[in-house]
Amino acid sequence: MVEIRKMLIEMKNISELMLDLAYSSVLYNLQDVAEEVVYLEERIDKLNAEVQIKAVEMAINDKNAAKAVAMIRLAYYIENIADAAVMVAKTVLDGGSVHPVLRKSFEESEVTIVMHRVSPNSILAGKTLGEIKLASETGMWVIAVRRGDRWIFGPTEHTKIMPGDVLIARGHPEGVEHFINICEGREREL
Amino acid sequence: MVEIRKMLIEMKNISELMLDLAYSSVLYNLQDVAEEVVYLEERIDKLNAEVQIKAVEMAINDKNAAKAVAMIRLAYYIENIADAAVMVAKTVLDGGSVHPVLRKSFEESEVTIVMHRVSPNSILAGKTLGEIKLASETGMWVIAVRRGDRWIFGPTEHTKIMPGDVLIARGHPEGVEHFINICEGREREL
Repeated sequence: MVEIRKMLIEMKNISELMLDLAYSSVLYNLQDVAEEVVYLEERIDKLNAEVQIKAVEMAINDKNAAKAVAMIRLAYYIENIADAAVMVAKTVLDGGSVHPVLRKSFEESEVTIVMHRVSPNSILAGKTLGEIKLASETGMWVIAVRRGDRWIFGPTEHTKIMPGDVLIARGHPEGVEHFINICEGREREL
Repeated sequence: MVEIRKMLIEMKNISELMLDLAYSSVLYNLQDVAEEVVYLEERIDKLNAEVQIKAVEMAINDKNAAKAVAMIRLAYYIENIADAAVMVAKTVLDGGSVHPVLRKSFEESEVTIVMHRVSPNSILAGKTLGEIKLASETGMWVIAVRRGDRWIFGPTEHTKIMPGDVLIARGHPEGVEHFINICEGREREL
């Protein structure tokens, strides 16, 4: 039961990350981010299948059908969201560049995605995301970190930011300027 | 063209609000919030149909098939996300209460939804959301306001918060305590 709940939480977290990454891949035409969305979908599929099995096994034991059905349904809904994220990401993967009209549409949306490099004299350099509390101080939430030619997707509070890292963050447009100033080291206080 | 882009932006914004409202309706067993999700889906369907028509009309005029297809596809993806939100909301509407296991799963998720009443001595009372910059200062983003027996869904920067309002906000868990302290008037600075 606790195990199934943990799987559902993981599915929900992954599906939300997938949507953000899918939009990011379109905005900045990032093939590798789009590929990550497809990869995460495999994890979602696997979790969905596991939830189904565990939930039915649980129902057999405790004879409670309603609980098992609720869990199976939720997993199914989340899988649909993940599928939609894959469809968005596939516009980047399916040959050729993303149409500028899509990029424009995302740029002007209420939920903003912003990508910016961390300067060596930024207060973020050398700190973990947990230490700097960027999300609660600027409203911008880091969803991916590019370090050299590799990516850290869905960083946690323990993820250390290094100078030169490129951050992708999502948030409310009003937080963007503050976020960029912090990345560039122009603002040294949160 | 500008008109179609505006419709796509509206669709994206509405679909994101729908997901947040759907999760909120499950978390707090809010029938009227779940109904709003269903209502917003009608708006999505209407916008989707309009995007299709306008995009094909545009293609006939400018003989650019790729642009029209990109727009139609994006609208379709967004509609799928909206549909998933409706499925989540329907667990609240389809007779009986939401299973506690769903609520638990959402409570422990990375994206937190919190509902709290604004005290008369909160700095929020009598201010617009634009004035207080709650989102960029706490990371918590107000998605709905309950005032007496009515709701304001998807409030804008111009929405004024009144003492006694109940706010539903989404954000990173690290911002929740700050948000609650501000609602209760214990913290009087942002």
